Amino acid sequence: MAELIDGRLIAKELRAAVKAQVEVLQGYNVVPGLAVILVGDDPASEIYVRNKGRAAEKVGVAAQTIRYAADLSEAEVIAKIAELNADPAIDAILVQSPLPEHMNEQHIQEAISPEKDVDGFHPENVGKLFANRHGFFPVANTPRGVMTMLHHEHVELAGKNAVVVGRSVLVGTPMFALLQRENATVSLLHKYTPDALRHQLLRQADIIVVATGVPELIKAEDVQPGAVVIDVGINRMEDGHLVGDVDFAAVEPIAGKITPVPGGVGPMTIATLLETTVELAAQHHDVTLEAGWQNI
Amino acid sequence: MAELIDGRLIAKELRAAVKAQVEVLQGYNVVPGLAVILVGDDPASEIYVRNKGRAAEKVGVAAQTIRYAADLSEAEVIAKIAELNADPAIDAILVQSPLPEHMNEQHIQEAISPEKDVDGFHPENVGKLFANRHGFFPVANTPRGVMTMLHHEHVELAGKNAVVVGRSVLVGTPMFALLQRENATVSLLHKYTPDALRHQLLRQADIIVVATGVPELIKAEDVQPGAVVIDVGINRMEDGHLVGDVDFAAVEPIAGKITPVPGGVGPMTIATLLETTVELAAQHHDVTLEAGWQNI
Repeated sequence: MAELIDGRLIAKELRAAVKAQVEVLQGYNVVPGLAVILVGDDPASEIYVRNKGRAAEKVGVAAQTIRYAADLSEAEVIAKIAELNADPAIDAILVQSPLPEHMNEQHIQEAISPEKDVDGFHPENVGKLFANRHGFFPVANTPRGVMTMLHHEHVELAGKNAVVVGRSVLVGTPMFALLQRENATVSLLHKYTPDALRHQLLRQADIIVVATGVPELIKAEDVQPGAVVIDVGINRMEDGHLVGDVDFAAVEPIAGKITPVPGGVGPMTIATLLETTVELAAQHHDVTLEAGWQNI
Repeated sequence: MAELIDGRLIAKELRAAVKAQVEVLQGYNVVPGLAVILVGDDPASEIYVRNKGRAAEKVGVAAQTIRYAADLSEAEVIAKIAELNADPAIDAILVQSPLPEHMNEQHIQEAISPEKDVDGFHPENVGKLFANRHGFFPVANTPRGVMTMLHHEHVELAGKNAVVVGRSVLVGTPMFALLQRENATVSLLHKYTPDALRHQLLRQADIIVVATGVPELIKAEDVQPGAVVIDVGINRMEDGHLVGDVDFAAVEPIAGKITPVPGGVGPMTIATLLETTVELAAQHHDVTLEAGWQNI
């Protein structure tokens, strides 16, 4: 029986740590400001954006949501971003995905100032991560949240064999960098990895992080006894229930530690977004804070 | 007996392809310009810089070397870079490593305009590589040269198991990205990888790229029959002879293809530097060229 890694609990601790940091900033007359741009009326995006706003409010981050109709031009979004880049009350800018098809996501990501790029998607921030730059810069929040979970659970990384399945720019690719930066040996698997090679590499892993969007891809035979299994996937099945990218019922008896779905990685993303927002605010006002995960 | 991958021959073909591209550019009245900044009097750097200048001249690239004494300030180097960034005759800027200890290499790398960053070290270019950006941007020349060798030798990458040993920002890290971009499954090993794990992962690899600076680290038992072995290392032994990071005599009978040292990866770096210089020039003047390696 694996130990469950309780994302709801860790996210709650992280939000409390972030709230304490916000209070430190208030002592300097700084209120961290987050701007969320939402284009169109995708119902899932509406829910995410509302949840982000509520979570921000609870920790004392001033969040504003800027809503646009789906037929807005790319140039208008970019003009709004330029305005937010110049606004001293805004520390963090987030453009909710997905964008309407007539917009180029890369143009929009690159319009956000790297200093306010709370999602860590700007090539300059991605590059700092892979070029092993020192100092603070924003990193994609979901993989960063996974690192917080691993630290919270005291999972040893240095010298360990880690396998990341899925190479998205949002999760798998920065996850690779964050694990190897802490001296794990990391393999990055993806849709062109043959099944036999995937099974072989997974079975040797001490730490597995899966972010593929393939329901229950990871089976019992993919996991060695005692492995730490982090499931970033969240897939809604036809009957409405949610499953991860790991066959939880089969893997849980074998793994050493495992995240459930829901209640695992999911709650960490917004908490980490707030952590990054507060760090950006601290940087903009030259205030030194301790990293959130070190406090929890 | 492995097939030898002859870097001298491939580099010669690449230089000829680059020369042909320079001639295409001349038809548009464009002469690619490369500026090399050399600070101090490190004798090895002197030789590298001289070789770069000669190779540039032979393919029709206008190269200038700017020499400074070792006690120059960082600000003066950065001022010179700003001048070169603004100079329309210069398409590519390279600062020879190592720099004197009082200079911060990262500051200097970031001072070079990403559009003239022929080494591909600027975080924005590193980020484009790892964020899977489309279109041309410069990539570190040594790993890019390794890709040219693999393409030249028709080594299949998609679906293959590749292991990169060494995670430097110059070689191993971009090598990882370039291999996985062509759909290999890649593991990145480094000095914190335990010996047993290194042996295990290497023995399963279809393609091995080694860039560690550890003489003859890779032994016969690390290589499965038929594997492609690329040795980026070049180490001068006490008696003066050069060895790679692979125990060539032991591995050569087992590998499918292997690069010798010297005469393997070494000659590719300068040829690829010229290829990148010409591509930057083409980009600055809106001329479309075919990629060099596609011509050879």
